[in-house]
Amino acid sequence: MSDVKIQRIEPRTLKGFRDYLPEAMIPRERLIETAKRVYRSYGFTPIDTPALEYLEILTGKGSDETDKQLYKFQDPGDRWVGMRFDLTVPLARFAAQHINELGTPWKRYHIATVWRGENTQRGRFREFMQCDFDTIGTLSPVADVETVLVIHDLFRAIGFDAFTIHLNNRLLLNGLLEKLDLADRSVAVLRALDKLGKIGPEKVAAEMAETAGATAAQAGDVLKLAGLEGSNDAVLSQVDSLVKGSPKGEEGVQKLRDLLAAAGAAGVPEARLKLDVSIARGLDYYTGTIYETFLDALPTIGSVCSGGRYDNLAGLFTSQQLPGVGASLGLDRLLDAMQALNLIEKVSTPAPVFVVYFVESRLHDYLKLAAQVRAAGIGCEVYPEAKKIGKQLQYADKRGFRVALIAGDDELSAGNVQVKDLKAGTSTTVPLAGDGLVAELRRIVT
Amino acid sequence: MSDVKIQRIEPRTLKGFRDYLPEAMIPRERLIETAKRVYRSYGFTPIDTPALEYLEILTGKGSDETDKQLYKFQDPGDRWVGMRFDLTVPLARFAAQHINELGTPWKRYHIATVWRGENTQRGRFREFMQCDFDTIGTLSPVADVETVLVIHDLFRAIGFDAFTIHLNNRLLLNGLLEKLDLADRSVAVLRALDKLGKIGPEKVAAEMAETAGATAAQAGDVLKLAGLEGSNDAVLSQVDSLVKGSPKGEEGVQKLRDLLAAAGAAGVPEARLKLDVSIARGLDYYTGTIYETFLDALPTIGSVCSGGRYDNLAGLFTSQQLPGVGASLGLDRLLDAMQALNLIEKVSTPAPVFVVYFVESRLHDYLKLAAQVRAAGIGCEVYPEAKKIGKQLQYADKRGFRVALIAGDDELSAGNVQVKDLKAGTSTTVPLAGDGLVAELRRIVT
Repeated sequence: MSDVKIQRIEPRTLKGFRDYLPEAMIPRERLIETAKRVYRSYGFTPIDTPALEYLEILTGKGSDETDKQLYKFQDPGDRWVGMRFDLTVPLARFAAQHINELGTPWKRYHIATVWRGENTQRGRFREFMQCDFDTIGTLSPVADVETVLVIHDLFRAIGFDAFTIHLNNRLLLNGLLEKLDLADRSVAVLRALDKLGKIGPEKVAAEMAETAGATAAQAGDVLKLAGLEGSNDAVLSQVDSLVKGSPKGEEGVQKLRDLLAAAGAAGVPEARLKLDVSIARGLDYYTGTIYETFLDALPTIGSVCSGGRYDNLAGLFTSQQLPGVGASLGLDRLLDAMQALNLIEKVSTPAPVFVVYFVESRLHDYLKLAAQVRAAGIGCEVYPEAKKIGKQLQYADKRGFRVALIAGDDELSAGNVQVKDLKAGTSTTVPLAGDGLVAELRRIVT
Repeated sequence: MSDVKIQRIEPRTLKGFRDYLPEAMIPRERLIETAKRVYRSYGFTPIDTPALEYLEILTGKGSDETDKQLYKFQDPGDRWVGMRFDLTVPLARFAAQHINELGTPWKRYHIATVWRGENTQRGRFREFMQCDFDTIGTLSPVADVETVLVIHDLFRAIGFDAFTIHLNNRLLLNGLLEKLDLADRSVAVLRALDKLGKIGPEKVAAEMAETAGATAAQAGDVLKLAGLEGSNDAVLSQVDSLVKGSPKGEEGVQKLRDLLAAAGAAGVPEARLKLDVSIARGLDYYTGTIYETFLDALPTIGSVCSGGRYDNLAGLFTSQQLPGVGASLGLDRLLDAMQALNLIEKVSTPAPVFVVYFVESRLHDYLKLAAQVRAAGIGCEVYPEAKKIGKQLQYADKRGFRVALIAGDDELSAGNVQVKDLKAGTSTTVPLAGDGLVAELRRIVT
């Protein structure tokens, strides 16, 4: 061997980056395709934007935190560029640039990779995919209703029965703050409230007193709102009495009432929708409806599909006011959850049928057989070497094929093929002519 | 307005990068999905690799040309990294790293974005997608046959009838050079021959004399081989007599004969396969079968799907010899061709059905109607605002919806809806209950 002379490079991936092997990639592709199908079924249309943008586009509104995480560099033309860290900034830039051509209302989905130089110690990845859909350019509550419907259809299409979409509206808290004369300190109140789960109500009240100058009674009312629980009707009527007299608050109550009614009319079972006044989703981006989605079997992993309504998407790039509403499927988190819930079959082939290459001189027969199976819309792989049958079946087993087709000289001469169910371990012999083979494969595969 | 104070950022993309608007993205996604479906139907399995790799992985085998085109930089952890410029180097790295876990033979497809800092003056883009499939780890000619079958099924599935897959085998030329005692100067010969289309046979012969020391007779034989034309049988028998006596050459002839026979047996019409001794595809990577695919209606755009067999995929990263064979769909070139051939419908919505939001108080009815259409697997968008019907239909027209559903108070009370064919301009009224609506939509849409 010439190994001595060749300087080999160690094959490895960067920290925080990962290869997707077939076993991980197959369910991933399936999930993405389901999302696309559901988004499209509502008229959301695909777009894509470059992975690289002018750095000023990406950092325009960024916090220090975002800046630090950004992959940025000077390109060969000495421009400062950065790799996109989310799909919202590119959407804002895209909308500002093209909205006159696109017209409003405009519904888009965008499924693409983003990069963040995150601290990998917390198990975070530096490259991941986002899966967003948004309706831009309309204030109509119909778009808010549709966002619920899309989330609902999406989780049904993925195969979930037990999930809950949590709904809130920013107007409730804003209304209460208006009523309590704290409207001008809403950011400080929100910042404190955001820590409720971590530090508990007493410390939140203390922080509200310190940073927002809230009295004990005011903090108490805010905490009361955030802590409301019960049926949707019960929560709504309690919220109603808390915010009564505030036009914003009353508007929020009415909007949530309408949203629940419309989603119900469109077929979403009541039990899958839950008013949850505690959800806030960040501090100042969202201005109306807020969405989070939890799997009933695994609520602790957090929301797997979240979003909300915002007033002004692209203020950084255009004077045109572009309100919108949308949500984002948490692809990786959901796949982790599905793995934990044993909802993902371990296969590393996308084709269910395996043709054993048994008799070398019969290659043309095997190729014809495979073509016949594929013509019926069933994926089919032919083993490329006329090896021992046991070795081929081992290969088929390891990959997760569902069925093997086996035929020697005798079978082929008689016009037959053996159909072996690799899970059940049973075999039947069917004729190659007619519909028998395809029918038997369909029976096993679907 | 607060415009005076706000410093806006000009929304723009980097030179050589582009946004995909819905009209461009819809056919693009459709094409990618077709490729995935065909690849999968043969058992090719999806993988993905990071956009960023250690720089040494990417530059390991690169030419100066590749190096100059590479987007490279130091990441926040001061590692030198680069953005992948093709999917072959990542595949080699991936295979070297995981092949023991994956096992051979191993069939993968990889559809992903790559980046090259190309000179944009030639209309080149700096970000584009590659769409590759390969069978790794087997020398079996069955994998070569399957490559033809995949290309064939792919173009049929995209909708083409008239296309030709050009086939060659490197062994033919190597055999001839062996026979002519020029085997040790094959690189120089290939380099000269590669210019045949540009500079013509005389200058090629002159270059062969100069750089490979070929006599006029030797150069004449090489040029004769490269210039052979006619039916597959005629070309094969002429090649046969040219290379007779060279084991390599004779093996090449036999392999091409077997390949044509097997592809024919599997259902590829003979007219779609063309022996073309002139195709070479670069200088030293491919070692066996070579594939190029041309659209009969637009041959001048060049090959839209190309590939070949190689001996050693990952020699840079592992001592394990990994032969393979595969091809790559030229996504952008094919989309350009389809555009030029008028094969792409101009729509900017993925849903065919549009529901007019006619009477504001009837929102729940429209949502129910849309849900009914979607439940039948037909995409359906509800206009979110109860605007004038003319305005809504204008919107539907501009987007390219195929059908509008219109219902006022009277229709809804009577349990009916008007189905308007937006292309034909005709309307019918159908009952909401029963299968009439879905049947009528299917009739128009499919």
